[in-house]
Amino acid sequence: MITCSAPAKVYLFGEHAVVYNESAICCAVNIRTRVNIEYSENIVINSSLGTTGIDYEIHPYVSAVVEKIRKKSPYRGVSISIESDIPVGSGLGSSAAVVVATICAFNNLLKLGMDKESIASFGHSIEKEIQGAASATDTYVSTMGGTVAIPARQHLKNPLCNLIIGNTNVFSSTGQLVAKVASLKSIYPEVITPILSTIGKASLRGESLLENEDYRSLGELMNVNQGLLEAIGVGCDELSRLIHSSRTAGALGAKITGAGGGGCMVALAENENIDAISREIKNAGGIPIVTGVTDSGVRVDFDNE
Amino acid sequence: MITCSAPAKVYLFGEHAVVYNESAICCAVNIRTRVNIEYSENIVINSSLGTTGIDYEIHPYVSAVVEKIRKKSPYRGVSISIESDIPVGSGLGSSAAVVVATICAFNNLLKLGMDKESIASFGHSIEKEIQGAASATDTYVSTMGGTVAIPARQHLKNPLCNLIIGNTNVFSSTGQLVAKVASLKSIYPEVITPILSTIGKASLRGESLLENEDYRSLGELMNVNQGLLEAIGVGCDELSRLIHSSRTAGALGAKITGAGGGGCMVALAENENIDAISREIKNAGGIPIVTGVTDSGVRVDFDNE
Repeated sequence: MITCSAPAKVYLFGEHAVVYNESAICCAVNIRTRVNIEYSENIVINSSLGTTGIDYEIHPYVSAVVEKIRKKSPYRGVSISIESDIPVGSGLGSSAAVVVATICAFNNLLKLGMDKESIASFGHSIEKEIQGAASATDTYVSTMGGTVAIPARQHLKNPLCNLIIGNTNVFSSTGQLVAKVASLKSIYPEVITPILSTIGKASLRGESLLENEDYRSLGELMNVNQGLLEAIGVGCDELSRLIHSSRTAGALGAKITGAGGGGCMVALAENENIDAISREIKNAGGIPIVTGVTDSGVRVDFDNE
Repeated sequence: MITCSAPAKVYLFGEHAVVYNESAICCAVNIRTRVNIEYSENIVINSSLGTTGIDYEIHPYVSAVVEKIRKKSPYRGVSISIESDIPVGSGLGSSAAVVVATICAFNNLLKLGMDKESIASFGHSIEKEIQGAASATDTYVSTMGGTVAIPARQHLKNPLCNLIIGNTNVFSSTGQLVAKVASLKSIYPEVITPILSTIGKASLRGESLLENEDYRSLGELMNVNQGLLEAIGVGCDELSRLIHSSRTAGALGAKITGAGGGGCMVALAENENIDAISREIKNAGGIPIVTGVTDSGVRVDFDNE
């Protein structure tokens, strides 16, 4: 039996703009998906979504990994079980985490000898296969951990602060939101293009603020980034409520993380404000998760094979 | 007895950015302040704020006009009474409206022969005297009426749409908010300067959308402008609620008008959505005022002198 786990991610800066090659800062956060794997007679995938064999309806990401690896390195059967603390479809990279944790589990069970770069890029190919288009950032950050400047993939100092995620529990489609931004950009290029490049500039400034451990300014710039996300049409009332509530409760900064239009926001917070911010997120209708950046990307938690 | 009235104003685009010489669009809206004036033994100023002589505490703007005019064109006494439908201190230009209506009333009572340009510039000098610094736009638009491109002062087509104002009833200080933007700009010039210039670009695009009567796009760009206002730190929870509620209820666009941080928002709306938007603004804790752009700037409503 082998257990591997991989973390969720949040964007401190730059979601959406990164699609247009602007800079972004993405962090692995210590909310994890665990994948247990062992040899078995058949292929069995067991998750909160149900128990099945290879079934693209029930767990397309895990099924795709299982199939791809079987073609490369044939094996008889495996039993896989998945537990996750990452809310699904909320912009925290739950699919990337399950994909890289599953690949890592196979890598150890079958002694495939993949390094982390290979796990990340294999993971990205799976995400692309299932989603049609997918950012390589989610799988990269979930594999490597830490705080990563995009597109350079340079590791930055982690913020020595808490991150409080607020989940609106409102479903949002990343594809639709990316398309919405593209449409606005094609209609009002003289307005939307500079907004996207300004998000990139905020992200670059964020890099030096992280370096200087100036979290007050970092939070202030996250708030600026939030306005720019509103400007490109990816805000919504539920997110605004959680964001404004967090700020009122003492967050250094708060913004959407991920595609917006629902999903999650993230607040940067000092220890003494954690309780108040969590409470206000709850009062505003959200589900708070207190976490922080982790250097631990995908990892083996248990291995007795 | 002479009665003069002057309208409130809203910004369709460009507040705050206009301070940095970017383009803006400002409209006179049909919410008015009326000033009645007649000869009297003494100087008496009667308004909802109280009855007094020249008293800078009770009505500094009117007192300043009374004094300035007495120096230029001595008279014995006047009785002035003021009624206003414009909420005070909420970014709708209530002080400009009372100033230009008072000047216009004196102009007719004393046969001063001032034209509209003189009324506007005299009004601006009064606003500067009381506020320390003041935009000339409020007094200009309240005097001239219509839809005005700033800084060119070019008259544009009025939007053939309703404007629904939502008042948060939260006090905000224009001076403090202008200072907040200036401070952000000095700390993060590479981020804030392009945001202000992008507001200007949105406003320029707004001019051609007004020309083409494309109100759907005009509303969409007002929403973009709103995000940019959030980005420069002048949003607040109460405003966001009214803005998101208006959009959900069918507004073509909705944004802060004025300094933000409280005060008012304005929604662009077609006839069939007026009731729903007004109701949702009320449900979200605001006070709705349904209005529209008026070509009628300062005017004489009654004159039997």
